[in-house]
Amino acid sequence: MKEKTMKSSDIQADAEFSAAERDAVYKCIFNRRDVRGQFLPTPIPDSVLARLLRAAHHAPSVGFMQPWDFIVVRDAAIRQKVRDSFEAANEEAAGMFLDEKQKTYRRLKLEGIVDAPIGICITCDRSRTGAVGLGRTHQADMDLYSAVCAVQNLWLAARVEQIGVGWVSIIRHDDLRGALGIPAEIQPIAYLCVGYVTHFLAKPELETAGWLPRTPLSDVVWIDRWHARDTPDPLLECL
Amino acid sequence: MKEKTMKSSDIQADAEFSAAERDAVYKCIFNRRDVRGQFLPTPIPDSVLARLLRAAHHAPSVGFMQPWDFIVVRDAAIRQKVRDSFEAANEEAAGMFLDEKQKTYRRLKLEGIVDAPIGICITCDRSRTGAVGLGRTHQADMDLYSAVCAVQNLWLAARVEQIGVGWVSIIRHDDLRGALGIPAEIQPIAYLCVGYVTHFLAKPELETAGWLPRTPLSDVVWIDRWHARDTPDPLLECL
Repeated sequence: MKEKTMKSSDIQADAEFSAAERDAVYKCIFNRRDVRGQFLPTPIPDSVLARLLRAAHHAPSVGFMQPWDFIVVRDAAIRQKVRDSFEAANEEAAGMFLDEKQKTYRRLKLEGIVDAPIGICITCDRSRTGAVGLGRTHQADMDLYSAVCAVQNLWLAARVEQIGVGWVSIIRHDDLRGALGIPAEIQPIAYLCVGYVTHFLAKPELETAGWLPRTPLSDVVWIDRWHARDTPDPLLECL
Repeated sequence: MKEKTMKSSDIQADAEFSAAERDAVYKCIFNRRDVRGQFLPTPIPDSVLARLLRAAHHAPSVGFMQPWDFIVVRDAAIRQKVRDSFEAANEEAAGMFLDEKQKTYRRLKLEGIVDAPIGICITCDRSRTGAVGLGRTHQADMDLYSAVCAVQNLWLAARVEQIGVGWVSIIRHDDLRGALGIPAEIQPIAYLCVGYVTHFLAKPELETAGWLPRTPLSDVVWIDRWHARDTPDPLLECL
């Protein structure tokens, strides 16, 4: 590439955000939920689903690698297979918690695989752009992280479409590969349950269930060095 | 937790998004950029920085683990140290590309560590909530992915505040640990350059530079199984 002069078309038009636009983005971020139990069978129009996928596809990716694929799972039999794999893993998982924690765990609803009308599996093709990748020479997992950013974009876009998303992680990757025909060299990143919902909950379900409390933000913000800060620090006063 | 009756306070008030709010979120997603070269020295008010951190803190996290810490790096000497580590890694990285690709690589501006007024390092404390974590029994890396979702939330919030963010991945984790005093058992996830900018570019810089093209979305969307779909499929028509 030759050095070139900046053209006005190189710069974003409509680059400013109004206060109302800014507030909309924060509202989306704060009102996003991991949805397990409120799915409606209502089909998602293809035009809406396309918007979610386009949002995901515009995630940042290391070296502009775009390592993701999106498998939209409509087939009920395949979703049932994914659900069966969840059930097996979840039974193992429950046994890993002790006493009261196990009782609480068994009461939690942790997925909506069959309830939601579709699933979306996001994967990462780690060798998509060859053996050496810009930005992955010293942090090889940046491709996985890029695919996670795509998940989060899709999740936020879904929220403004009144569509709930739940990320199912209590499942073996090889079971997911089996159910969806994903090759061994492709890394599954997320299986998402996706559908319209009756409502969105005010708080995360695990917070309401007493599984863990929300950490005060001021407990996890530091200045210049790990676990270091002066008190009072004006930033900490704002948190 | 006892089974309990749903109260109206359990459900989100103001849960609907108007068309304008929806558009604002998509505008943010599409106009977010990885910023390396347009930083202004203008300080970020603490109240604004607090909003970015709150957005990050409201990312989804596996088992509500909230495994993240945020180190806000104001100190110029520490940022210079991070920059020196980048330079060393980037020289090694350049050598891994061949011929024309190496020439292109060496022309790219890949970080704004010293130009941006602050850095933010996001880390993951993998043992924060004990040995067994809900949702991590079968996918142990979900905690890392949660911290990545926090990065993406912060990035999108920054965009609506007219603040640019650049993710520096061409650096060794141990160098970052050294510069910021991060213990060996804590996993650095991202070092972000953060600051107001002169402008946002219309396209990703690596796309403009001809490093890689944007993949057509229709090349990476599949139905029910990996690399399977009927053509025409009504969803694919919408992409």
